Amino acid sequence: MTTPSHLSGLQLRSLVKATGELELSLVSVETPQPGPDEVVVRVEATPINPSDIGLLFGAADLSSAKASGTESSPMVTMRIPERAMNSMVARVGQSMAVGNEGAGVVVATGHSPAAKAFMGKTVAILGGAMYAQYRTIKFDQCLELPEGATSADGASCFVNPLTALGMVETMRREGHKALVHTAAASNLGQMLNKICIKDQIGLVNIVRKPEQAALLKGLGAPYVCDASSPTFMSDLTQALVNTGATIAFDATGGGKLAGQILTCMEAALNSTAAEYSRYGSTTLKQVYIYGGLDTGPTEFVRNFGFAWSMGGWLLFPFLQRLGEPAVQVLKQRVAAELKTTFSSNYSKEISLAEALELDAIAVYGQRSTGTKYLINPHKT
Amino acid sequence: MTTPSHLSGLQLRSLVKATGELELSLVSVETPQPGPDEVVVRVEATPINPSDIGLLFGAADLSSAKASGTESSPMVTMRIPERAMNSMVARVGQSMAVGNEGAGVVVATGHSPAAKAFMGKTVAILGGAMYAQYRTIKFDQCLELPEGATSADGASCFVNPLTALGMVETMRREGHKALVHTAAASNLGQMLNKICIKDQIGLVNIVRKPEQAALLKGLGAPYVCDASSPTFMSDLTQALVNTGATIAFDATGGGKLAGQILTCMEAALNSTAAEYSRYGSTTLKQVYIYGGLDTGPTEFVRNFGFAWSMGGWLLFPFLQRLGEPAVQVLKQRVAAELKTTFSSNYSKEISLAEALELDAIAVYGQRSTGTKYLINPHKT
Repeated sequence: MTTPSHLSGLQLRSLVKATGELELSLVSVETPQPGPDEVVVRVEATPINPSDIGLLFGAADLSSAKASGTESSPMVTMRIPERAMNSMVARVGQSMAVGNEGAGVVVATGHSPAAKAFMGKTVAILGGAMYAQYRTIKFDQCLELPEGATSADGASCFVNPLTALGMVETMRREGHKALVHTAAASNLGQMLNKICIKDQIGLVNIVRKPEQAALLKGLGAPYVCDASSPTFMSDLTQALVNTGATIAFDATGGGKLAGQILTCMEAALNSTAAEYSRYGSTTLKQVYIYGGLDTGPTEFVRNFGFAWSMGGWLLFPFLQRLGEPAVQVLKQRVAAELKTTFSSNYSKEISLAEALELDAIAVYGQRSTGTKYLINPHKT
Repeated sequence: MTTPSHLSGLQLRSLVKATGELELSLVSVETPQPGPDEVVVRVEATPINPSDIGLLFGAADLSSAKASGTESSPMVTMRIPERAMNSMVARVGQSMAVGNEGAGVVVATGHSPAAKAFMGKTVAILGGAMYAQYRTIKFDQCLELPEGATSADGASCFVNPLTALGMVETMRREGHKALVHTAAASNLGQMLNKICIKDQIGLVNIVRKPEQAALLKGLGAPYVCDASSPTFMSDLTQALVNTGATIAFDATGGGKLAGQILTCMEAALNSTAAEYSRYGSTTLKQVYIYGGLDTGPTEFVRNFGFAWSMGGWLLFPFLQRLGEPAVQVLKQRVAAELKTTFSSNYSKEISLAEALELDAIAVYGQRSTGTKYLINPHKT
């Protein structure tokens, strides 16, 4: 076993208290000694994804955030609205580690040959508790990065790339020929755009601002619809006619957008229909909600017949249904195209302590396109 | 061929005009001579189902209804709101016959032995254009009624019974063990209640009034939740815990009910969960919207994780997926239990002309529980 004894490091924690407070803190934890098939990764880069923010802040009200603690041991507390405490009950009293994915260098390994083979390699890892200086993890959860790739290059190897590839796989497996994506100027949206251009799949990108539309068009996206435009509904309908898209992945969740997509899909299908069908088009129109950028209620007018479905979509259950061999194929594609299709952009690199600064929380907590932060747990 | 030559009769028609008017009328039409495999049914009873009302009135505003024409040739016109004309475009200029199902006596047949065998029989029929005195139809679309059953007994043999049985089939095929039904005091709801008691299936009935709850409890329903009660959400959650229902069929469509069912399903699942799951329960929670009693927008707060789906459900596409042999089994059950499980109640029997009276439209047009009308096209 090649392990420095008593390796310890900082870890970010989120705790819901029975009093209705959420507390973020940095604690120093002893790094678990690796088992035979485990390795210890010195985490050098870990992104703040919307899915991490959900665990980080729970149902807390960000505007109530207050800083306390010391510079070396910062702490942030927030109030959880009383009516939201119901959904937090199972978390009460559990200090939770955060961070779905990250990348770094293997600095220690267990004694199995397979684990030892990772010594010194730069790897991407998935499995939670990545907002930490060190992470002990099974070797088979490590994806070795290609020659020349840094930890920052590989920090977002899993969540966004596998989500984008998972959307395309879902589209194929459920018999659709093209797809719609909202919040399409995000890192994830840009990846999906690159995948669809490369694989010649019809993609309708929905954004909320003209500058986001310009960004995607600059990246070669053939169909970009701006929800802030007065011609949005007719633009979307025409793009749906042109691509034949009958499945959508919606990151916003709240508001009217998911329903508007179904309305436009129905209009697109009917524009080529020969005769009146009293129950609407018989082609299934599917919207999957995979995020909650808009936490408000979802609202729709059912003017799209009966052949429709709206539902939740999550990466991890999807990967489970897909099965390990097929997932491996996707992961290898991510590694091979890490610096092209699956490259990510971050607006800032911050330390663990900086992740607990109120100014930083006010920015990355918005989860808006263009404000993605990367944590470097060893930044000083 | 045993056919009276030149048989003709009244037929009810619905016409959307390009000017934005909907026109209901009675016309005298020549009854088509039966082909070799066809029979002519003297229609004696045909119900006004919510699904018929959709075709009858389209997107017209019922409160704008005006009567015209003569006593023997009545006519009703209604205004279609301008923004709703989009959905009516494909109907413009087509005078449409109405009425999904009915029952009557075979008064003429084609020359094939199979068709001839129906001569004089009382049959239930499905296939549209039943709001008419005579209907020519293929013999294999006739369900012979059991000894002693009248046309009124058999008028609602298909839509409600097959929908109720279809819900139970869908529940089984999609891996759920119990189900929820809204607008549960309706004829359809009462049938479903009888089926579930007989077949020992867990059913949670949701109604909107205390008297409807009392009605269903009087019929032996173990779980009845009244949406007008202040304890509705906790009552529903408890009924879901007790039955384990994770699929619902919602006739209302608009409003918050569909989402409330998902919320309570999630609460029921979490009440027995051992640990916190940040993405909610992993058990799929399904709501099918199969009607639109509330034509307003559908609205829900996504506080039920990601393992959920809401979608449209329609009888005819379901029967197509089920396949003819399985459908035959369901139909035979309907015939066998016509006077017990599948008996229907009507608040009034009216003639075709009476169906065009404004007072009648104001009642049956509400589609509310307890105001179901039966048309007898030969009533004078």
